[in-house]
Amino acid sequence: MLNSEKPIGVFDSGIGGLTVVKKLQASLPNERIIYFGDTARVPYGAKSNDTITEYAIQDADFLINKNVKMIIVACNTVSSVALNILQERYNVPVIGMIEPGTDLALSSTENKNIGVIGTYSTIRNKAYSKMLTAKNSDLNVFEKACPLFVPLAEEGWTDHKATYLIAREYLSEFREKNIDTLILGCTHYPILSNVIQEVVGEDVKLIDSGTAAAATIEKHPELEELLSKKIVSGNHEYYVSDLPVKFKTIAERFLGRTIENVEKIDPEQL
Amino acid sequence: MLNSEKPIGVFDSGIGGLTVVKKLQASLPNERIIYFGDTARVPYGAKSNDTITEYAIQDADFLINKNVKMIIVACNTVSSVALNILQERYNVPVIGMIEPGTDLALSSTENKNIGVIGTYSTIRNKAYSKMLTAKNSDLNVFEKACPLFVPLAEEGWTDHKATYLIAREYLSEFREKNIDTLILGCTHYPILSNVIQEVVGEDVKLIDSGTAAAATIEKHPELEELLSKKIVSGNHEYYVSDLPVKFKTIAERFLGRTIENVEKIDPEQL
Repeated sequence: MLNSEKPIGVFDSGIGGLTVVKKLQASLPNERIIYFGDTARVPYGAKSNDTITEYAIQDADFLINKNVKMIIVACNTVSSVALNILQERYNVPVIGMIEPGTDLALSSTENKNIGVIGTYSTIRNKAYSKMLTAKNSDLNVFEKACPLFVPLAEEGWTDHKATYLIAREYLSEFREKNIDTLILGCTHYPILSNVIQEVVGEDVKLIDSGTAAAATIEKHPELEELLSKKIVSGNHEYYVSDLPVKFKTIAERFLGRTIENVEKIDPEQL
Repeated sequence: MLNSEKPIGVFDSGIGGLTVVKKLQASLPNERIIYFGDTARVPYGAKSNDTITEYAIQDADFLINKNVKMIIVACNTVSSVALNILQERYNVPVIGMIEPGTDLALSSTENKNIGVIGTYSTIRNKAYSKMLTAKNSDLNVFEKACPLFVPLAEEGWTDHKATYLIAREYLSEFREKNIDTLILGCTHYPILSNVIQEVVGEDVKLIDSGTAAAATIEKHPELEELLSKKIVSGNHEYYVSDLPVKFKTIAERFLGRTIENVEKIDPEQL
């Protein structure tokens, strides 16, 4: 098999990464994707860095054993904690969410006021603000953890009054900061983008991880070279460490299409 | 060591069980308690029954190795899925949350209309409604999953407008059913009892798992006999499989006092 015809591996702590897969499938239609979601141990967002790193290695090893040509870490929490360790461990490219989101935000902002929202872990680790200011010291970055957005997205409360109230609680401070760009630093958040957009204002550009990752892959020659020149045969494959209640409903909401070829992997065997 | 002077073991998928510990410490002040919270793998509420059972056995084995005289499963999800398996596995009493809550609800209700709220897993397994109607066929039981209550309790949004809105969305149907008793079928929910009480009405009796478990232990002679007749020396001990962000803050909110003697156990070693 040509290297370019191998699949792209994508993993996440759960199903949030399916919003990234959705964007990749739209932007890179030639590619076959193998997805792993660690649904038995989700969420990672409030776990310690040691635990997150241990789980991330198990998740990525699983994809490596599927002979993938690159790994996309479709989880901002893992990207902010364990990306370097994964990049050192494997001899295929490992792409996190932080740098693509940072680059897209930098190309979007005009007034240099950028907001970032994410889980406790991502915000506590200052993953985005560190990389943003490393690339451009002339920025004002405002970060905010929004932990209730994940359960609201999974519940599908995308248009509920309570979701607007919670979004206003979390996001109204960004209005005062006059941001023109907001990084959705968690792969669950695109599900709530309508609410988020309304609360922060229609003039604020929302940066989602999937769009940013696809842009990064197409922009870097050494990654672009790995892409297939024709449609790769075979179906996308989805693996999860648990098949929770309502999995199919939620997964299809995130992926934006019906989900087939889902197989459960015992987390003890990871 | 006298059997009665051994500690009581309590476990939960995370920290919710600390609301049970709080009630036990108030009702059974002579007892020393060893708590295990599987914070690395929380929440169990949306996981499959196989996974829940596997984790529950690991959690309970950990307590058995601490030489406990009885095990309290301070997790409604585990109680509804795996209690029988645990009771067969060990030669100490294993007390779940379902029967104590059922018994207390039966002694509380006058109009025979009982509501039950819990996680998806507890409600889907119809744990409470099966046991309620097995004990009294002349009841109307109304069940409702309230999945957003767990993250709201952990966030400590006990008085936020959004919490009231969400509670009204979940609970307003109980008003029409004319319930006089509501079982809080998840050990996180007592944290939100003020909101829940206001939404369902002040005349509805709320049944919490900790109060119910303490009542069960004191009522059954073979359990009561295991209780210590004097204050057992030694501190309560708390073990968790992860020390997440804000653990201490949240744990102390649930326990109602400062938490000392917390030790992290690697979940791989369970």
